[in-house]
Amino acid sequence: MKKHNFSPGPCILPNEVMLKASEAVLDFNNSGLSLIEMSHRSKEFVDVMEKARSLALELLNLEGKGYKALFLQGGASTQFIMVALNLLEKRAGYLNTGTWSSKAIKEAKIYDDIYEVASSESANFNYIPKGYDIPSDYDYFHCTSNNTIFGTQMKKFPECPIPMVCDMSSDIFSRQLDFSKFDLIYAGAQKNMGPAGTTLVIVKEDILGKVSRKIPSMMDYKIHISKGSMFNTPPVFAVYTSMLTLEWLKNLGGIPVIEEINDKKARIMYSEIDINPLFKGYAVKEDRSMMNATFNLVNDNLKETFDTMLKEAGINGLNGHRSVGGYRASMYNALPIDSVKMLVEVMSELESKA
Amino acid sequence: MKKHNFSPGPCILPNEVMLKASEAVLDFNNSGLSLIEMSHRSKEFVDVMEKARSLALELLNLEGKGYKALFLQGGASTQFIMVALNLLEKRAGYLNTGTWSSKAIKEAKIYDDIYEVASSESANFNYIPKGYDIPSDYDYFHCTSNNTIFGTQMKKFPECPIPMVCDMSSDIFSRQLDFSKFDLIYAGAQKNMGPAGTTLVIVKEDILGKVSRKIPSMMDYKIHISKGSMFNTPPVFAVYTSMLTLEWLKNLGGIPVIEEINDKKARIMYSEIDINPLFKGYAVKEDRSMMNATFNLVNDNLKETFDTMLKEAGINGLNGHRSVGGYRASMYNALPIDSVKMLVEVMSELESKA
Repeated sequence: MKKHNFSPGPCILPNEVMLKASEAVLDFNNSGLSLIEMSHRSKEFVDVMEKARSLALELLNLEGKGYKALFLQGGASTQFIMVALNLLEKRAGYLNTGTWSSKAIKEAKIYDDIYEVASSESANFNYIPKGYDIPSDYDYFHCTSNNTIFGTQMKKFPECPIPMVCDMSSDIFSRQLDFSKFDLIYAGAQKNMGPAGTTLVIVKEDILGKVSRKIPSMMDYKIHISKGSMFNTPPVFAVYTSMLTLEWLKNLGGIPVIEEINDKKARIMYSEIDINPLFKGYAVKEDRSMMNATFNLVNDNLKETFDTMLKEAGINGLNGHRSVGGYRASMYNALPIDSVKMLVEVMSELESKA
Repeated sequence: MKKHNFSPGPCILPNEVMLKASEAVLDFNNSGLSLIEMSHRSKEFVDVMEKARSLALELLNLEGKGYKALFLQGGASTQFIMVALNLLEKRAGYLNTGTWSSKAIKEAKIYDDIYEVASSESANFNYIPKGYDIPSDYDYFHCTSNNTIFGTQMKKFPECPIPMVCDMSSDIFSRQLDFSKFDLIYAGAQKNMGPAGTTLVIVKEDILGKVSRKIPSMMDYKIHISKGSMFNTPPVFAVYTSMLTLEWLKNLGGIPVIEEINDKKARIMYSEIDINPLFKGYAVKEDRSMMNATFNLVNDNLKETFDTMLKEAGINGLNGHRSVGGYRASMYNALPIDSVKMLVEVMSELESKA
């Protein structure tokens, strides 16, 4: 039976990517060697790294604009620290829109004071705060574009008088934005880009080198840039598979094309949530995420029936995060529209049964 | 043509490991899902992580002795920082035996003074210093068990009055040692354990929690321990493939068996270096590494001929590091004895030609 994989991350990747990744583990480009047993300094792998880096910039329309792309390790959680180490001298402003923003704030506080420009914590993060001020004498402003757990997404980004840093882990490459408004973007690979194990960092070079602290080499963006993202042995498999996914996206037509598909999936999903009386959405409508739809059963007595029906339909990964409960449909780039249709069918079948 | 893969790392892995890893990328344990698209919180993956952690302790004979095994990200280069952040309060002593020791010292110096207990730098690291003192009032002593670049290996470890920390990246799981003499062992996976992208840390819990600084979460061993090595999304593929390799080693008979094989490979290799007048070994004999044999041509005019012969024999990854020049035969656990025999054959063929 075909599985419909709604996992919040690690999550579904394009089928052709998994085929090629699997093949490369046996024999990389007919080299007679596995991708994972060859030197990362070999021409073959250096080409992979360079292609991944340039595809990332190309897809985001950031080529020739002073940005560098890095494939690092450690996840967004490590970026919480690196951002502060590399950019925080005096004070920074953070927008608190959920669990990951809160964690970013907590880690940055180790290095200095952090000012929360706004927070939706009192409403358990079911909306995105708007209309806040960003002090112009701060070092940078940090926000999280999409909140996987709560199912909210920033639709507009503030006019920012200081460098803008954005954790785009769960919606990068999913929609068109003017990415040149951001000075640093980071994203764990395991949603729209590849397997867990690498983190994309896109950084405008001119914001670096302005703090007075001594930064450990592995935490220093400037060092990674100077080494072409190969300061130490990179996570070869994760970088290669990310490159394949970016290539897939480019061949599909890039972000404009995938945005249309994502938009369609989200509209199908949310209209079912809105018309089906058995369910209610968690996030306020205007801030609903195109990537993660969070919703609850109005009557929890139906949970067992619904869960059984989901299982029978081959639907996987729909459990909501414990902070919200209920369900979460993660609809990343590689999720086929048919999977959303199947889920919606099961939801409406539940309605006809109930 | 069969390739003989002498790459210094990432390097050869057992064939059955690559087959299983490749298969898991398509379908993990007949789940209908790829290993890389399933949640790291799924029972399936949590089992993988727990198995990898317990196999590591079992193989090193460290079970029930107060140690925890962690699979982290960022390579040994990140451990240079984490060791200092977690253990360095006042002063630490480092043994400088090569490029990686020097890097470890450089990173730790960001946090405090470092004392080099001994160094072989003036001899371009062609031997392992002995007979040094380790001050008993220091926080810890740090050493590198095997020096990939220079081809030296510590055969004996000092009696250490303070916690002993060892970078075993390039010889862990290759030979029998009393591992309980160490308080913290770390090793990038990409030699004897798996693909690049994860780093094994074995730490004795009672040495932690003694420094006064605030440690960022991702850099804090205690936090990783408390979360079962799943504080954030782990590098799923690298951990799984490492688990497969540890399983392979256990089925083979564990470290005692692989040590015998490694010993045999090293004896074949070094006896050719010693009897063949065209070559000379780089490292002093008593400190020669069983993992990486470094050697040079006596007459560099033969380089082109030798390189062509190597290529024709399918021998890959034999270039020496630029700090030493010449050749380096990396003979990690998974390298078949036949590959060493083939290399030795080519070397002796060169002698008969010359």
